[in-house]
Amino acid sequence: MKISNLLIHLHNSIDAFTLKPRHVEQLRQALPEVNITVAASDRDFMDRLPDAEYAMVWVFKAEWYAAAPRLKALFTPAAGRDWVEADPSGRVLTCHGSFHGRIMRESLLSMMLYFNRRLGKSLDDQGCRRWGRRDYSGCVGLFSQRVLIVGLGALGQSMAELLKAFGAHVTGVKRNPESFAGSPFVDGVIAFDALEEALPEADHVVLLLPGGTATDGIFTARHFNAMKPGAHLYNLGRGNCYREEDLVAALEHGRLAGAGLDVFAEEPLPAFSPLWQQRNVLITPHSSAISQEYIDLFIAEWLETVRKSGPQHETPQ
Amino acid sequence: MKISNLLIHLHNSIDAFTLKPRHVEQLRQALPEVNITVAASDRDFMDRLPDAEYAMVWVFKAEWYAAAPRLKALFTPAAGRDWVEADPSGRVLTCHGSFHGRIMRESLLSMMLYFNRRLGKSLDDQGCRRWGRRDYSGCVGLFSQRVLIVGLGALGQSMAELLKAFGAHVTGVKRNPESFAGSPFVDGVIAFDALEEALPEADHVVLLLPGGTATDGIFTARHFNAMKPGAHLYNLGRGNCYREEDLVAALEHGRLAGAGLDVFAEEPLPAFSPLWQQRNVLITPHSSAISQEYIDLFIAEWLETVRKSGPQHETPQ
Repeated sequence: MKISNLLIHLHNSIDAFTLKPRHVEQLRQALPEVNITVAASDRDFMDRLPDAEYAMVWVFKAEWYAAAPRLKALFTPAAGRDWVEADPSGRVLTCHGSFHGRIMRESLLSMMLYFNRRLGKSLDDQGCRRWGRRDYSGCVGLFSQRVLIVGLGALGQSMAELLKAFGAHVTGVKRNPESFAGSPFVDGVIAFDALEEALPEADHVVLLLPGGTATDGIFTARHFNAMKPGAHLYNLGRGNCYREEDLVAALEHGRLAGAGLDVFAEEPLPAFSPLWQQRNVLITPHSSAISQEYIDLFIAEWLETVRKSGPQHETPQ
Repeated sequence: MKISNLLIHLHNSIDAFTLKPRHVEQLRQALPEVNITVAASDRDFMDRLPDAEYAMVWVFKAEWYAAAPRLKALFTPAAGRDWVEADPSGRVLTCHGSFHGRIMRESLLSMMLYFNRRLGKSLDDQGCRRWGRRDYSGCVGLFSQRVLIVGLGALGQSMAELLKAFGAHVTGVKRNPESFAGSPFVDGVIAFDALEEALPEADHVVLLLPGGTATDGIFTARHFNAMKPGAHLYNLGRGNCYREEDLVAALEHGRLAGAGLDVFAEEPLPAFSPLWQQRNVLITPHSSAISQEYIDLFIAEWLETVRKSGPQHETPQ
């Protein structure tokens, strides 16, 4: 990949997702031959788009490609396909970040250990100055539990690596398990079709499915009913993969002991959602990837891709 | 170690610390030649003590050794020296468990990630149905932080192993750093005397010091004042190593951003302690080692010791 110019527009309402001057400096030092421009505003970005060859963006609309005749590739930190639309003509490549695992696995573990170590109970007791030492004998170590990761991409594999360091047994679920290259951190891979057979064994079920019509409601009431009594569910993918009524029913009348939820069918989660005050639900506001290192990791990954000069371009969908 | 008889008295007010029939079965199957007796009560234990050669106990008083002329060694799951008193005559060996790391490191991580991922804020927001997505940009990943483990024994090294899997930089503090055999999970070891120099660098300071007069108040107001602004403190060792007034002062007027506390100078923590309602303090009731696997791990470690036939007997103190 030979880059003559790079147009950057990485401003975001989340401060950790916004490019800082130090990142621009890092890029200029690493690639002195590249003409790097940082757009001053949305308007400035659109004005410069006709000359851009490569661009880093958070948002790109399908109709903008017509105004970018020289554009070869778009790079976005996002893992999800929600904000950068593919080029309808198939000419421009879109490349998504795949560095999120190191951050998001810590968020996942914060939830798992919150439930496993009964911190909700500790906090309740603390509030009423109660020493509840006899109430932890039911705690179970992650090192003796089984985790099922539904959606075993780069993110799921990074999580598996950390879960394996704890000593957990990790099974991955993929649409096409035969395409999985294998990993020392994953004990087994099954097809989505076999999910119902694996659910009764899992202490923790982690949903990392992408959004879109292919995953709409893919995790059904039947799946919730197949879960192991006392198991916990986590969703750090997208909120469309189950009906929230099914989740609430599983929490109220089913086997589910708790859920750690970072994503929702509608975001922000509406004030009237029953999830807010559901017992044993831990809600985070689509924040599992938010961390000070976010853009650092994106830039490092991008520079590595450029250095290898063979970026893993994805075919526009 | 040739064992002809083993007297077991492992009853505890904490259910997870109490030997179950399956453990006795496991011991009998593993060591069919050993005469294994489980004491039915404290009284029964004392009655059988005169004939016992080996014993597994939670509690043993110094004066009991006189009533146990055939006793060669005492085994206790406890890592701390609090409940099994050493033989004043030096005749009987006392062997403490060192399996606690796998459980306690999960408790430590539950606290670290609770603070790092701002779960206290998430829970507050959840209570008032607030979507606070913009408030996580200050989160920092453990993979870019430095952890200082004060007291680098078996427990600290097990914690270091897990922290290294996260990608954290780990420094250990030992009384005699030259005695440390080295570990791939520890980036450096310093003497306790050098602690003040290392504190300004550490994002997380983990106290794992044993109790007793040698550690009484060893972590002073000067140490608290040397900590990095925004750092977090954890105590999973014993509560005597600092004055709780100094900790409260560091939390109220000092640099400390928060503390995860499992042990206290007085336990249960008195209802009037200011720690209960201190902002950014997470209190657990000396429960960091409580988990269903506790006795399983103790028995597995003990059988391994017997199998090697060269138990790491400690000289009675």
